[in-house]
Amino acid sequence: MKFRRSERLIDMTHYLLERPKELVSLTFFSEKYESAKSSISEDLAIIKDTFEKQGIGSLQTIPGASGGVKYIPRTNKEDAKKFINELCRLIADSDRLLPGGYLYLTDLLGNPQIVSKVGKLLASSFADTDIDVIMTVATKGISIAHATAAYLNVPVVIVRRDSKVTEGSTVSINYVSGSSKRIQTMVLSKRSLNEGAKVLIVDDFMKAGGTVKGMVNLLDEFNASLAGIAVLLESEEAEERLVDDYVSLVKLMDVDVKEKKIKVIEGNYFTNK
Amino acid sequence: MKFRRSERLIDMTHYLLERPKELVSLTFFSEKYESAKSSISEDLAIIKDTFEKQGIGSLQTIPGASGGVKYIPRTNKEDAKKFINELCRLIADSDRLLPGGYLYLTDLLGNPQIVSKVGKLLASSFADTDIDVIMTVATKGISIAHATAAYLNVPVVIVRRDSKVTEGSTVSINYVSGSSKRIQTMVLSKRSLNEGAKVLIVDDFMKAGGTVKGMVNLLDEFNASLAGIAVLLESEEAEERLVDDYVSLVKLMDVDVKEKKIKVIEGNYFTNK
Repeated sequence: MKFRRSERLIDMTHYLLERPKELVSLTFFSEKYESAKSSISEDLAIIKDTFEKQGIGSLQTIPGASGGVKYIPRTNKEDAKKFINELCRLIADSDRLLPGGYLYLTDLLGNPQIVSKVGKLLASSFADTDIDVIMTVATKGISIAHATAAYLNVPVVIVRRDSKVTEGSTVSINYVSGSSKRIQTMVLSKRSLNEGAKVLIVDDFMKAGGTVKGMVNLLDEFNASLAGIAVLLESEEAEERLVDDYVSLVKLMDVDVKEKKIKVIEGNYFTNK
Repeated sequence: MKFRRSERLIDMTHYLLERPKELVSLTFFSEKYESAKSSISEDLAIIKDTFEKQGIGSLQTIPGASGGVKYIPRTNKEDAKKFINELCRLIADSDRLLPGGYLYLTDLLGNPQIVSKVGKLLASSFADTDIDVIMTVATKGISIAHATAAYLNVPVVIVRRDSKVTEGSTVSINYVSGSSKRIQTMVLSKRSLNEGAKVLIVDDFMKAGGTVKGMVNLLDEFNASLAGIAVLLESEEAEERLVDDYVSLVKLMDVDVKEKKIKVIEGNYFTNK
């Protein structure tokens, strides 16, 4: 069956959105829709225009016989600002205050719309970085790590506090938690990370950065390299930051338990580029 | 600025795909694109046709003043068969065998393309069920729970083995693990689940079903109700299944450690409907 342009545009949009950063050849589309490559090229030009105009992302065209097209997720500045402001508003809600000045963020990390937008923003920050895999630590960072991974189209590996029989052999390291100064253990399945892999570390919350630093040290054990660090929320409180090059969406400035006030501002998302 | 039909089709496709099961009014699209409602209706008819023809899902139209359109993710039978066969092939790989006859599945559960397809299949199974929230248990089920949640557009709550200070007050229960018969604890943050919520339980692996049964018991503590159970992999091995109504994609028939053979077949995905 022949495809009309309108059908092609809808199906190609879906196809590309499902495969960020994957090179799709013109030949593939041309065969899928039984249409001339020149028509496919015209379709892609319209999709590219619309994606850019609407802040969906960009289409990168690679010319030549082995060429094709790639969807690169990007968030435009206006949408990013709006969403980060919304996050600030949500996180500053005094109902989040827990005994000890901790913040309850579980609802945000479980909300698929929020998680997906956080993932798209973090992925946008690293859209032009060469990344093979995303690393996070169980449990709370997993949702945003996976959302970021979906937009970068790379796998996720999860560092754990203890080893499980279903992980096979593991590598474990001890590290010093930045804020509590306690010695803790982290464990990663041996076969989950390849030698030489370029790793983006993603986590929900960073205070002094001890846990993130632990993950960076773990990379050495695997001869893997650090490609970047991205967190949803960083805390200003930290006396001494163990990590300095990272992207954060929101920054926690102050938690006043007595007055029940949480002060948050935009993170370094816009300034770190 | 005015939008041409081709641009509208691309942007509407993106907009709808990002918001499964959400009612979007014709007025919203009409204002967004400064186009007559009659044109928007025509656009939606083309999108609906293409979504159905291409196995992307369906568009449900709700007529009337408060009406609009909803994208319902569905996987057609042919695509589902193909993907489940692929899963069987991947899981039957003898390299997955770990000491004790356990299977290494971490790579599959960390692969964004596989995780997303699993999520779409499980969501398709429950596309017409009333679901408020998805529940899973840390850690391995989290990725597919979130992928399913993204397609059903509902939040995820994560049951843990131990309570964390960042979860606030928790409810904990003891349960008997089905296969090891050991008494274990599971914990859920009190404020993460509302009274009366209809809950879909999602997990990566079910043997006797002790963990899933534990989650079902936990629902009682919250006066929540069970809307369904969905697992990626079930095991035939179980002497006595503690749970009987569930959907599985793949069924593990036998693990022969000596011969290094794993036997898997299609789960009850097609027969359970």
